[in-house]
Amino acid sequence: MNGARSLLSTLVGAGVDVCFANPGTSEMHFVAALDEVPALRGVLTLFEGVATGAADGYGRVAGRPAATLLHLGPGLGNGLANLHNARRARTPIVNIVGDHATYHTRYDAPLESDIASIAGAVSGWYRSTARADDVAADAADAVAAALGPPGCVATLVLPADASWSESTQGPCAPRPVGRPATVPADTVEETAKALRSSERSALLLGGTALRAEGLRAASRVATASGATLLGETFPANLERGAGIPAVDRLGYFAEMAQAQLEGVSHLVLVDAKSPVSFFAYPGKPSDLVPPDCTVHTLARPGEDAAAALDALAEAVGAPAHAGAPAPASRPERPSGVLTTESLAAAIGATLPEAAVVVDEGNTAGPFVSGATAGAPRHDWLTLTGGAIGLGLPMATGAAVAAGDRPVLCLQADGSAMYTLQALWTQAREGLHVTTVLLSNRSYAILNIELHRVGADAGGPQARRLLDLSDPDLDFCALARGMGVPARRAESAEDLAAALAASFAEPGPALVEVVL
Amino acid sequence: MNGARSLLSTLVGAGVDVCFANPGTSEMHFVAALDEVPALRGVLTLFEGVATGAADGYGRVAGRPAATLLHLGPGLGNGLANLHNARRARTPIVNIVGDHATYHTRYDAPLESDIASIAGAVSGWYRSTARADDVAADAADAVAAALGPPGCVATLVLPADASWSESTQGPCAPRPVGRPATVPADTVEETAKALRSSERSALLLGGTALRAEGLRAASRVATASGATLLGETFPANLERGAGIPAVDRLGYFAEMAQAQLEGVSHLVLVDAKSPVSFFAYPGKPSDLVPPDCTVHTLARPGEDAAAALDALAEAVGAPAHAGAPAPASRPERPSGVLTTESLAAAIGATLPEAAVVVDEGNTAGPFVSGATAGAPRHDWLTLTGGAIGLGLPMATGAAVAAGDRPVLCLQADGSAMYTLQALWTQAREGLHVTTVLLSNRSYAILNIELHRVGADAGGPQARRLLDLSDPDLDFCALARGMGVPARRAESAEDLAAALAASFAEPGPALVEVVL
Repeated sequence: MNGARSLLSTLVGAGVDVCFANPGTSEMHFVAALDEVPALRGVLTLFEGVATGAADGYGRVAGRPAATLLHLGPGLGNGLANLHNARRARTPIVNIVGDHATYHTRYDAPLESDIASIAGAVSGWYRSTARADDVAADAADAVAAALGPPGCVATLVLPADASWSESTQGPCAPRPVGRPATVPADTVEETAKALRSSERSALLLGGTALRAEGLRAASRVATASGATLLGETFPANLERGAGIPAVDRLGYFAEMAQAQLEGVSHLVLVDAKSPVSFFAYPGKPSDLVPPDCTVHTLARPGEDAAAALDALAEAVGAPAHAGAPAPASRPERPSGVLTTESLAAAIGATLPEAAVVVDEGNTAGPFVSGATAGAPRHDWLTLTGGAIGLGLPMATGAAVAAGDRPVLCLQADGSAMYTLQALWTQAREGLHVTTVLLSNRSYAILNIELHRVGADAGGPQARRLLDLSDPDLDFCALARGMGVPARRAESAEDLAAALAASFAEPGPALVEVVL
Repeated sequence: MNGARSLLSTLVGAGVDVCFANPGTSEMHFVAALDEVPALRGVLTLFEGVATGAADGYGRVAGRPAATLLHLGPGLGNGLANLHNARRARTPIVNIVGDHATYHTRYDAPLESDIASIAGAVSGWYRSTARADDVAADAADAVAAALGPPGCVATLVLPADASWSESTQGPCAPRPVGRPATVPADTVEETAKALRSSERSALLLGGTALRAEGLRAASRVATASGATLLGETFPANLERGAGIPAVDRLGYFAEMAQAQLEGVSHLVLVDAKSPVSFFAYPGKPSDLVPPDCTVHTLARPGEDAAAALDALAEAVGAPAHAGAPAPASRPERPSGVLTTESLAAAIGATLPEAAVVVDEGNTAGPFVSGATAGAPRHDWLTLTGGAIGLGLPMATGAAVAAGDRPVLCLQADGSAMYTLQALWTQAREGLHVTTVLLSNRSYAILNIELHRVGADAGGPQARRLLDLSDPDLDFCALARGMGVPARRAESAEDLAAALAASFAEPGPALVEVVL
C-alpha cells in the first residue's frame, strides 16, 4: 500500500474516522485512498476555516480528534484562526497539511511557503513526515499527541511523495491512550485549608472541570465551604441545564469580572487560567485578581480535575449528596416584538433534550444563557480564543459528532460572514443544525469597545467601519444560495414556532432574527 | 497627537491613502483616527482575506501600496493566503497588524499568539513598533520597504498602547523612493552574445517586464534575434491588447511548458524565475529547463527590466520601431449555447478600453485569453501564488485603484467560495466590477490533477470531495444577499448583452455562467 493508505488505516485504527477536508493537488493520493479505507468519512468544506472550526466542534463533542486535510501553507493559513480557537479550547485535532514532494521544495514553486512557521503558532505537536515508511508511525504519534491530555492541535505535514510512494510498513497500531494525571493529595489539602478559612473564597472552573462530574463535585465543595462557583469566560464545552449544578461564568468585560471577584481572598483555579482582561484598556489593569487575593491551583490542564474536586469535597467534609443541581424550568413561549429578551425566551422554551449549543451570539445573545439555565441538559460551546468566525463551522463539526443530538447555533452577523460557507457543508451532509442568525447589522461589540478604549468615536469614518448596513446582508438569501432552508422570524411567537419546527426536523435550517 | 494619528498622517504623506480594514478592539484608536486624517480612505471588508487580496489588487494596479488593518495573529492568519499571493507578485503592501498593548502580552490573553512566526512566511519586511514615539518612523520605513523595488509585503505590528499613547514626534516625512537598479552592461552584452548564436533562444518575461514598455523592447529583441517571447505562467500584471506586443504565457501543466521550451538552447530570464513545475508528479521532472539549455539572467527582481531589454535590443541591432504590436481585432458577438468558447467570444466582443481583467477563471477560462488578444488595451492580473480565493478580493482592490476604469473579474466557482464576502465591499463602495462567475460545479482542476498524479480516481468518496454539486450553489442568490445585482446568463447573446450593460453602468454586477 502507499503512504496515504497506511496513514488513513492508522487513523481509523486509532479512532479517528472523520476528516474535514479542503484538498488540493498535493493531497490527491490521500483523497484517492478514502475509497480504500471507507471507515474514514471525508467531509468536504468550501474553505479551510470551516474545516478547522468543524474539527474543533467535533473534538469538543466527541472527546476524540477529527482529522483535517489542508493544502500547503496557504491552506493552513486559511484554517489558522479556528486552529487558534481550538488551541485555546485544548481540543484534540490531527491537523494534516499536505505539502509538495520532498524533492520539489528546493525549486520554490509558487505554493511553497514556510509551513513550520505558520503551524508553530497553533500546534502543540508538529512533525513533517520524511518518507512513506514513516507516515503510519507519525500518524499514530499525532493522534496520541492530539489526545494528550491535555488535548492539542497536532500538525502532521504530509509531503506528496510520502503519500504516493509505497510503504513497506503498512498501518501502525494505536499508541497507548494517555490518562489525566492525579492531583497530589498535598495540593488538595492545601486548597481545603484555604477554603476552611473564614475568608471569602471562590473556585474558578475551566476546561474539563465544566462537565457534569466536575460541576457536581464543585457544587458539593461550594455547599460545604461557602465558596463561590465561577466558570471561565469562554468554556470549550460547558455541561448545563436541569439537574446539573449551575455556574456563573466570569464576565467578558473586565469591570464585570472584577465585580464578581471583589472581596475574594482565595481564588482556586481548577483547570482554568488566572483571570486576565481580554484586551488591554488605557489605565485599567490587565490582571483581574483582586490585590489581596491568594491564587491557588487545584488542577492544571492535563490533570484529573473532577477527581481533584471530589477529593476536595471530601476534604472539606461535604456530604455525598450535597450540591445544588439546577431545577428544571423553562420560560413560557414568548409573543410579540422580537427583542434580545424574547429571543432568549423562545430558545429557552424550545431547546430540546441533549442539544449542543454553539454560542457565537456575541452582544446579541446575553439573555440566552439565563433563559436556558433550567432547560433540559445540554452542552454549551463558546469562542475560546476570541477569533471570530467559529460558530457556523463549530456547529457543523459538532453535528457530525453529535449524531442524533440537535445542534443550535447562535450566530452573530458580523462573525457569520467570516465562514458562512459552513452552511453548504451542513446542507450536503444533512446535518441537524438550527442556526439563529442574530442580525444587528453592526460589529456591535466594537461600538462598545471603541468607547471603552477611550477612543473618540464621533466621526463618520469610524462609525462606517463598525457598521454592517449599506448594504444590509440578507442571510436568508445567502443560506438558500448554499442549499439551507431559511426564513426571517417576524415576531417572538414566529421565532419559537420556527425553532420548534427545526428542532423536530432533521437537516439544517436558518432563522434570521433582525434585532 | 496619539501614535495612531501620527501613523495615519505618515502613511498619507508617503502616498498611502487607502486602508482595507477588519479592525477589532486593539485597533480602535486607528479607526478613530480616520476621522482626523480624512485623506486616508478606510474600506471595510467582512473578512481579512478580502482585505489582503484587495490590497494586492490595489498595489498591482496603482503601483504603490495600500495599507491593511488586521486584528492580531488570527486576523493575520485569515489574510495570509492572499498575502502569499502578493508576496509572489511582489506587490507593495503595508500590512498593519494590530496587537495587544505591549504590557498585556505577558498575560497570554485569549487572542495572544505568535504574530512574528505567522507573518514571517509572507513578509519581506517585519517590525513590531515598541512605543508611540516610534510609530511614525516605523510606518515611513514600512512604506519604503514595501515599495522596494522589488515590492514586498511590509508587516508593521502595532501594539494598542503605541496607538493610543501620545507621540512627541508627530508624523514622519517619507523616505526617499527606491529606484530599480540598472543592469550592468556586461550582463546585457553576455545575453546579446547568446542571442546572436545560431541556436534557438527564448526570453522568459516576468514581473515588471510584462508592462508595455518592456514588451515593446522585448518584441524588438525577438524580431531582430529570432528569439521566442514567453511570459511567466502567472503574471502579476500583464499589459496586453491592441497595440501591445503579445506574449505567450508558459503553460500551467508541465507538459505544456516543456513543449513550449523544447529545443531552446538559451533561455533568458527577465524578472522571471527559471521555470519549474507548479506541483510535483510521480516520475516527472520538477525543473522544466530542457537538458542542454543554458539559462541566462538578464534582469533580476528589483532591476530595471525594461531598460535592460532596451539595451539588449540595441545590442542585437534591432531597429527602433521593430517589434510586432498585436493588431486590433475582436470576435463577433456570439450567439447560441454557452460554452467556454462562446463565453470567451462574448468577453472579447465587449471588453471595454482600459479594462482591468482579474483572472481566477481556472479551468473555465482557457479561451478568454485568445479572444481578448486584440481587444482594446487592458491589464491582466493572475493568481501569482496559487492560493485560491484571490479573484473577488483582487478585483475589489483593483477597482479602488482603477478609478473610472472598469474591472472584469473572471471567477471560478470553487475559488469564489473562499472569499465571496468581497462582493459586499464592492456593493458598499459602489465599485465598477463585473464578475463573470464560472460555475462548473466542481473543483475541475483537481479532477484533472487526480489523474495526473497517478492516483486511482474511480471511487465515489474521492469524486465527492472534488464535486461542488449536491447542493448546487446559487451564485445569484449569494450575490443579491450581499447587495450585488446578479443574473444568470442563459445563452451566449444573453451573456454578451449582460456584459455590455454592466461595463456601461457604474457599480458592481455579477453574471453567473453555468458551464
